[in-house]
Amino acid sequence: MIDHTVKSFDVELELLGRHISEMGGIAEKMLADAMDALAGLNAVLAQQVVAADARLDALQRLVEEETVAIIAKRQPVAVDLREIIGALRISNELERVGDLAKNISKRAAKIAGEGRIPRAVGGLKSMHDLAVVQLNDVLDAYAQRDADRAKAVWLRDVELDALEDSVFRELLTHMMEDPRNITFCTHLLFCSKNLERVGDHTTNIAETVYYIRTGKALPTERPRGVASAVTP
Amino acid sequence: MIDHTVKSFDVELELLGRHISEMGGIAEKMLADAMDALAGLNAVLAQQVVAADARLDALQRLVEEETVAIIAKRQPVAVDLREIIGALRISNELERVGDLAKNISKRAAKIAGEGRIPRAVGGLKSMHDLAVVQLNDVLDAYAQRDADRAKAVWLRDVELDALEDSVFRELLTHMMEDPRNITFCTHLLFCSKNLERVGDHTTNIAETVYYIRTGKALPTERPRGVASAVTP
Repeated sequence: MIDHTVKSFDVELELLGRHISEMGGIAEKMLADAMDALAGLNAVLAQQVVAADARLDALQRLVEEETVAIIAKRQPVAVDLREIIGALRISNELERVGDLAKNISKRAAKIAGEGRIPRAVGGLKSMHDLAVVQLNDVLDAYAQRDADRAKAVWLRDVELDALEDSVFRELLTHMMEDPRNITFCTHLLFCSKNLERVGDHTTNIAETVYYIRTGKALPTERPRGVASAVTP
Repeated sequence: MIDHTVKSFDVELELLGRHISEMGGIAEKMLADAMDALAGLNAVLAQQVVAADARLDALQRLVEEETVAIIAKRQPVAVDLREIIGALRISNELERVGDLAKNISKRAAKIAGEGRIPRAVGGLKSMHDLAVVQLNDVLDAYAQRDADRAKAVWLRDVELDALEDSVFRELLTHMMEDPRNITFCTHLLFCSKNLERVGDHTTNIAETVYYIRTGKALPTERPRGVASAVTP
């Protein structure tokens, strides 16, 4: 970090970081609640997740305002500029994670009346758990500005892709076995895709942390598992 | 528009506008090609769409750089600031539209070997056509800074939701009729969801145009069709 003669720039950065951190906490909580709502077909909890998204949206707008104000006031360059742009990008990614948790919750609420829980929900739970570990890890990497840790998270996304592939096959099997499973399993397919996309946002955050720290980009395409050749 | 004593601010805005316009053109072309690739199971065309996405990503980064430079140099306020923030937001939305076209193309490439085209592709074509009309319309609204036209686009998104619902039912019927349709139709279900999401980004752009012009937000929740109670 450049040594700032005007101390309050650091104070502004710290406030930005606190808002990103709050967004991360809300997004993780929304994901956990969305998964619980889905596993338990709990429409009330699902509704709470949908309601929680407003705070995340408000924080994203706040971060946008703060970054614009800092750029206008300080004309930051080099790593300082990367810090500000990075905060803006990460807040956008976290807002989208919240949208995905909201999507899962809306589906949970829709199928809550069906009372049909195939074994496949177990696969979704594994996806969720991995997605949350990854998200938590990348937010720690951001808090520590640790480029190596960010890159490790980025590389591990392939595991989530592989899990999605396995969930996809399992759901397809359920659908082929009994046409009455088709509607329900279709909802779970979309939930699984939502969790895989949480992983994509996590890797975007990892790329941003790497960029803040090094000024360089990770390759645009991650190594993909063999699995992803099959998953839709 | 505020009368600028420094004329070159308008030149900078115009350049930003040209980049947004180029992004819009690329996104529309990608969508059209993705739909053709899907309808014709054309893996070569699908690959071209995937390749085109790099230019869209590069333009998004360029718009980000330009907006940051303008904010730092001019400390814009009021409508000028909304212009800059609006350009940044719209470029983000268009980049995501490109991602969705890329997703559809990847699926087209995957199922190209199957040679199985159920009638449901017709429904997807209708969704695509409406999504492109809406996107084109909102980009015109942006070019003219026409808040009323933007709001009209925003309100019409409900038609795309209704179309998605009809495609969803049709695909489910194909899947229930013959389990051999399940894998193929699952891919089409995701394509249909991608097209519906193009509509969401279009409404986000509409909200941004409205914000630039009026300084106000449209309601956070659009009126939803009855359809959306069914569609997953």
